[in-house]
Amino acid sequence: MYNRTSMKIFITGISGFVARHLIEFLSSLNTPVEVLGIYNQHLPAFNENEFLNVKCKFVQLNLLDKEKVTKAILNFNPNYLIHLAAKSSVALSWQRPGEIVSENSQIFINLIETLRETSISCRMLSIGSAEEYGHIKNSSLPLLETFPCLPVSPYGAARVLQNNLVGIYTHNYGLDLIHTRSFNHIGPYQNENFAIGSFLKQITTQKKQGKKEVTLVVGDIDVIRDFTDVRDVVRAYYLLLQKGIKGETYNVCSNHGYKLREIIDTCSKLTGLQIKTVANANNLRPSENKELIGSYEKLNKETGWYPKIDMKTSLTDLLSYWDHKMLPVNA
Amino acid sequence: MYNRTSMKIFITGISGFVARHLIEFLSSLNTPVEVLGIYNQHLPAFNENEFLNVKCKFVQLNLLDKEKVTKAILNFNPNYLIHLAAKSSVALSWQRPGEIVSENSQIFINLIETLRETSISCRMLSIGSAEEYGHIKNSSLPLLETFPCLPVSPYGAARVLQNNLVGIYTHNYGLDLIHTRSFNHIGPYQNENFAIGSFLKQITTQKKQGKKEVTLVVGDIDVIRDFTDVRDVVRAYYLLLQKGIKGETYNVCSNHGYKLREIIDTCSKLTGLQIKTVANANNLRPSENKELIGSYEKLNKETGWYPKIDMKTSLTDLLSYWDHKMLPVNA
Repeated sequence: MYNRTSMKIFITGISGFVARHLIEFLSSLNTPVEVLGIYNQHLPAFNENEFLNVKCKFVQLNLLDKEKVTKAILNFNPNYLIHLAAKSSVALSWQRPGEIVSENSQIFINLIETLRETSISCRMLSIGSAEEYGHIKNSSLPLLETFPCLPVSPYGAARVLQNNLVGIYTHNYGLDLIHTRSFNHIGPYQNENFAIGSFLKQITTQKKQGKKEVTLVVGDIDVIRDFTDVRDVVRAYYLLLQKGIKGETYNVCSNHGYKLREIIDTCSKLTGLQIKTVANANNLRPSENKELIGSYEKLNKETGWYPKIDMKTSLTDLLSYWDHKMLPVNA
Repeated sequence: MYNRTSMKIFITGISGFVARHLIEFLSSLNTPVEVLGIYNQHLPAFNENEFLNVKCKFVQLNLLDKEKVTKAILNFNPNYLIHLAAKSSVALSWQRPGEIVSENSQIFINLIETLRETSISCRMLSIGSAEEYGHIKNSSLPLLETFPCLPVSPYGAARVLQNNLVGIYTHNYGLDLIHTRSFNHIGPYQNENFAIGSFLKQITTQKKQGKKEVTLVVGDIDVIRDFTDVRDVVRAYYLLLQKGIKGETYNVCSNHGYKLREIIDTCSKLTGLQIKTVANANNLRPSENKELIGSYEKLNKETGWYPKIDMKTSLTDLLSYWDHKMLPVNA
């Protein structure tokens, strides 16, 4: 049904760190791929012609503008669409809940309504989140996709809506949609808006200042989260486009929980630095599960996927990214 | 906490048939009540000073305009808010899903964000729907509120978002919100946009034309639905404002299933007319449960509520409404 030799992928959120890894992965396939990448505020940090085998074009577009979304999709006529763009900060959704819920939902609706109205033959990957599960019982870990969703953050509530719409639009309008519940990511290019990126930026900054003992400002570091290297994540997305079953929801996760405190310890070992942590109440969230671990059994069964990159490698590579990024400009 | 002697209620959707019954009910309480009723396109069919004990004021307002919503709520300073306004047609949500989902969600967010930002002390009743449940198993009837929601219509998906936001805004921001899952209503003033209203309008029209055998255009009349008289419904809403527990969700229903076909038979008996039905494919919906019955155990436990008006009375009164409405203008 899907002809890989003529892969044309419409990617939203092209400036994000997941998109960059996705393009790198596509480039490694040695198959010609055409990408139309949508950004809103900032151009990607890579060039349109940086990757072999991937013919990229970047277009600035506000995805809230339905008319322009429809025009862009019709013009490009993709056979795949990956919707990576989102205000994906749970923290921000506590501060500006209305904005996060309504914008994320409206953008998603603009995309699926375009597919419904234009009837173009296009498989879309809808990227959701582990936040959809909300309050869970530890006895139900690792979470299966059948576990009922009771989101506890505005961000999670919007993702549940998205997930429900995937089911409804597939079942009733015949659209070819697949939904992921993606757990935490880790890897190169991850910025300071996420916990691990923030830790590594702080560590690298103080290391460059010649400090042997580093002070990290953190939130609750006793929570346990399921981290997957972003390079494994994009491989999962690609495999789902190729082999996923339409209308279905898949966890993308490692089935392994890491306490944030442990990750900081590993950073200490990798860098040889003493790390002291200081809690900042602003980094604490009103509602949070202590432990969140997913099962990738369903994803594995359908696509053969399993995570290949271990935490130490992820951290080493992310440290090296920040090391490189923090070089003096004239170095 | 809530002082009934100074009840000030902000009601959205004041032109709808539920609002009218709510005002009638409030008027019967013999306690002074102030109402600010919001309408969008049409003024209510009753006057501001029609009801004893209820000081009504109607204001035209597009609830999508957040700034105006906030201004109206701040100016009126209500201690209760009942959000009845919604594009509540499931059928319409199949035709224009994007519009229904995003408008209903945006309006709800505008209201709760106003309560969050202004911190006024106001209990809000969020009216949801049995459509939230979606696909159910007959073995789980009558439905309890704990049954997991898997909505099958865009309308239902938007209502689930609303329900999730009630939980989140209560739990995290301390708002005083209560959510209902309201099942089908029946009663006077019900218009032809709903199945029963449409049946009764068709019956009355043909009766006035002197026909002894009436032809009804219908959808699937073998579905079983839980109907509650709208006068019982508004009493439940009032009791929930007085006695409901914040953050909780309550079914509003009769715990009794009626096949639409049976209701048509009762109409035949009540009017003495032969009724023939003709199915119209346009009235069939892509996804529908055959049977939907709710339990009002939780509502009863908290408030003492139970339905008082039986189906025969509801139908008699609704027939009488249409009889009266269809009188020749000069009669």
